Amino acid sequence: MRVRLDLSSKPADYTCIHSVRVRFAETDAMGVLHHAAYVPYLEEARVEHLRARGRPYQEIRDAGYDLPVLELVVQYLRAARFDDVVQVHLRVSSFRGASVQIDYLLTIDDDVCALAATVHGVVDQDGRATRAPSWLKELLAGV
Amino acid sequence: MRVRLDLSSKPADYTCIHSVRVRFAETDAMGVLHHAAYVPYLEEARVEHLRARGRPYQEIRDAGYDLPVLELVVQYLRAARFDDVVQVHLRVSSFRGASVQIDYLLTIDDDVCALAATVHGVVDQDGRATRAPSWLKELLAGV
Amino acid sequence: MRVRLDLSSKPADYTCIHSVRVRFAETDAMGVLHHAAYVPYLEEARVEHLRARGRPYQEIRDAGYDLPVLELVVQYLRAARFDDVVQVHLRVSSFRGASVQIDYLLTIDDDVCALAATVHGVVDQDGRATRAPSWLKELLAGV
Amino acid sequence: MRVRLDLSSKPADYTCIHSVRVRFAETDAMGVLHHAAYVPYLEEARVEHLRARGRPYQEIRDAGYDLPVLELVVQYLRAARFDDVVQVHLRVSSFRGASVQIDYLLTIDDDVCALAATVHGVVDQDGRATRAPSWLKELLAGV
Repeated sequence: MRVRLDLSSKPADYTCIHSVRVRFAETDAMGVLHHAAYVPYLEEARVEHLRARGRPYQEIRDAGYDLPVLELVVQYLRAARFDDVVQVHLRVSSFRGASVQIDYLLTIDDDVCALAATVHGVVDQDGRATRAPSWLKELLAGV
Repeated sequence: MRVRLDLSSKPADYTCIHSVRVRFAETDAMGVLHHAAYVPYLEEARVEHLRARGRPYQEIRDAGYDLPVLELVVQYLRAARFDDVVQVHLRVSSFRGASVQIDYLLTIDDDVCALAATVHGVVDQDGRATRAPSWLKELLAGV
Repeated sequence: MRVRLDLSSKPADYTCIHSVRVRFAETDAMGVLHHAAYVPYLEEARVEHLRARGRPYQEIRDAGYDLPVLELVVQYLRAARFDDVVQVHLRVSSFRGASVQIDYLLTIDDDVCALAATVHGVVDQDGRATRAPSWLKELLAGV
Repeated sequence: MRVRLDLSSKPADYTCIHSVRVRFAETDAMGVLHHAAYVPYLEEARVEHLRARGRPYQEIRDAGYDLPVLELVVQYLRAARFDDVVQVHLRVSSFRGASVQIDYLLTIDDDVCALAATVHGVVDQDGRATRAPSWLKELLAGV
């Protein structure tokens, strides 16, 4: 696995923030946000950040590229509950050759709730690994 | 809406059964199966029944057709809980022109848990309503 | 079933609006928002409306009440796609005795995307049907 | 993070297998099983294995314990598609003090589809870390 596990728990180390409110549908019988339900939060934060950078994810897809998740790591530190507002802090932690790692810090009321990272490849519409064109490289370098 | 609400709560009125076990991920903070999580159970039962009829859903899709849900009704009668085995009973209740209604009875240990119905259209790969070929009509008539 | 199917497709008939953006995780292999994924949108709209009325859903739960969904109806009229912003319009269509019906109109760029309704009961923390106290009745009457 | 990333891709290194069929609802607009949807598969495999060991997870919960996921790692190696049958191979890779790591190998038709690991703690019903009683330790040691 390529993913680097040295995730920072300092908000200042991250470059952008996106808020997600915990849905009741995402809680489980323990009364907390189910651990699988964090994963779409990371995705939503990536999508919002690409939009903020002026390149909505759909445009990337329309151009014939996809950025599938190759690796995923989540460390759960404090339970999130129904109606909590989770702040998803995001940064590109590395971009090398064909893959990019994005790190996430999730906080609720300034308390760390979770740390996470995803590693993405660049593929064409048939799902084959492909070279990112320069505009996509630039975009990812600064996701 | 076209959906007919006269759903039978007698297992004998249904033509096939498919079992689904409630996942922990599908429960919510009320401690029960979340009401949205029933919907994929209906879909899974449809898929299994098409397979049992010798025509897996993927073959229908490969032939260029899709059967999108146009209408959905669910009546929740008794909570389902983590690890319960839900029996999904299914029958075609009507097939007219371009749409088919499928009825569902969900039971746990022979107690009625929910009643449901879905109305489906036939569309081509671009999502446009289309005429079902005779093999698909026959299949749906007996789904 | 108690649910009334005469749902209005005029935004002016609804009393409030909540926006939800379609997540990639909520799409399916047909390339559209999966039909089950609309259901949490309705829930999210209810939650936001209770908050706007000054009574967050968690307060209702903390007071010992829950408002489980007893019936659900959805009519899908136009596909929603990844990244679409869905406007969920909501109104209380009826409140009688122990149950309340809430109607929903979902639009994307002013086009109707779906109509829906949920019927809710009032239960105590053990899931038993109970009489709503007057503050809850008032709240629901105007949800 | 405590999770160890040296996951084996040999089925023979795992102690049990559980099959899950990919639901249409779990696919996404790339036409594949969404990366978040793998996570409940791991959970379902754990639950089935506890049952096979004679101690259904609900009994553990009824005894006042929960086994929340503290860390999660997934490596996606080959896309899974609608209707694929995913074999989830599972083993306890380590059990030390208050936490247990479970490793997973996911295969489709004998091809490796994904590798994963979860680290679990033992908590009481209020979500506080607690000492596992000997029966639970034994169970986890051999999950």
